[in-house]
Amino acid sequence: MKVSIIAFDDFTDIDVFFMWDLLNRVERPDWKVQILGDQCCHVSATGMRTHMHGRLDEANSSDAVLFASGKGVRRKIKDDVFLDAFNLDPERQLIGSMCSGALILAALGLLEGKRATTYPTSKKLLESMGVKVVEEPFVREGNVATAAGCLAAQYLAGWVLEELLGAEESKRALKLIQPVGEGLSFADFDAKQLSASAS
Amino acid sequence: MKVSIIAFDDFTDIDVFFMWDLLNRVERPDWKVQILGDQCCHVSATGMRTHMHGRLDEANSSDAVLFASGKGVRRKIKDDVFLDAFNLDPERQLIGSMCSGALILAALGLLEGKRATTYPTSKKLLESMGVKVVEEPFVREGNVATAAGCLAAQYLAGWVLEELLGAEESKRALKLIQPVGEGLSFADFDAKQLSASAS
Repeated sequence: MKVSIIAFDDFTDIDVFFMWDLLNRVERPDWKVQILGDQCCHVSATGMRTHMHGRLDEANSSDAVLFASGKGVRRKIKDDVFLDAFNLDPERQLIGSMCSGALILAALGLLEGKRATTYPTSKKLLESMGVKVVEEPFVREGNVATAAGCLAAQYLAGWVLEELLGAEESKRALKLIQPVGEGLSFADFDAKQLSASAS
Repeated sequence: MKVSIIAFDDFTDIDVFFMWDLLNRVERPDWKVQILGDQCCHVSATGMRTHMHGRLDEANSSDAVLFASGKGVRRKIKDDVFLDAFNLDPERQLIGSMCSGALILAALGLLEGKRATTYPTSKKLLESMGVKVVEEPFVREGNVATAAGCLAAQYLAGWVLEELLGAEESKRALKLIQPVGEGLSFADFDAKQLSASAS
């Protein structure tokens, strides 16, 4: 199973690395997470140079495709070469976005007639593209989902984990990143229910 | 004002990039956030090659120094060259750690006689170093603080923001990353109380 996170220059750091870290907590040999872009490297909104794992067309054969957010989104929704690289199909793939990444889903025609959420600063533009924008952290319409507000990344990644690997695996991965005493306890590891990898 | 995040090979991605992204949401000309290491680049626990912004000794002149976590910590607490690079002083600096990074604080003698928290898999080792480990997401003892469980990064970074820039700035930055409808609303931006930068 393969999950692709789509990045570009000026991506919001936390939206990519939160999903990336969480999705990488799955310990199965047939599980692969990759960050894809149209260049070998992309520079984040804060200037972090990040190597991609592959080109955009690999998204088309992925089980789940998750679009990042950030200032760069507004350039990508006008970039025909970028948009034309995708041949996504909600019938056979899970497709999602973080924050302003919903604008890319809309540009790809994936939000037609659907409800969606986005970062507050992208609300009006997304509405102008014909999408019914709602003030919710996570909106699912069949196999297309949008999440908004950085910490909602756990809802988006959790949805992908649950759909592809089941509720138990999703719950296990999400527990690993909760604050100690607020969802994660010392006893969770004593019981060997969780991986013993250090963090 | 200067905040340094300390990284090393096999660091936990989310613990570095969560603090990095959040602390970079401050929009002041005299505010600088940097990731420091003992090499030009370090490779995260998931294999992400990350460029450092400077060498470890820059931590000694920083207003706040935050240690990352990860599998690499266990090597660094036995690495005298790494430990000797630090000349930190809680009298003039805020010093903190995420998850297993508390082991480095202990190795530096900064947790003597103090309460602290850490990731569950590091609890016993931290206790063996003479620290009273408590099951809490964030523990502050004067100018030394420990946070545990990845999402507790917001408590650690929020503490630094509040101490250095005041409660209002800390609250503003933390609001920007909350899920829409769960701490962040569309109206927050209409009121121009928050920056209009896209996410």
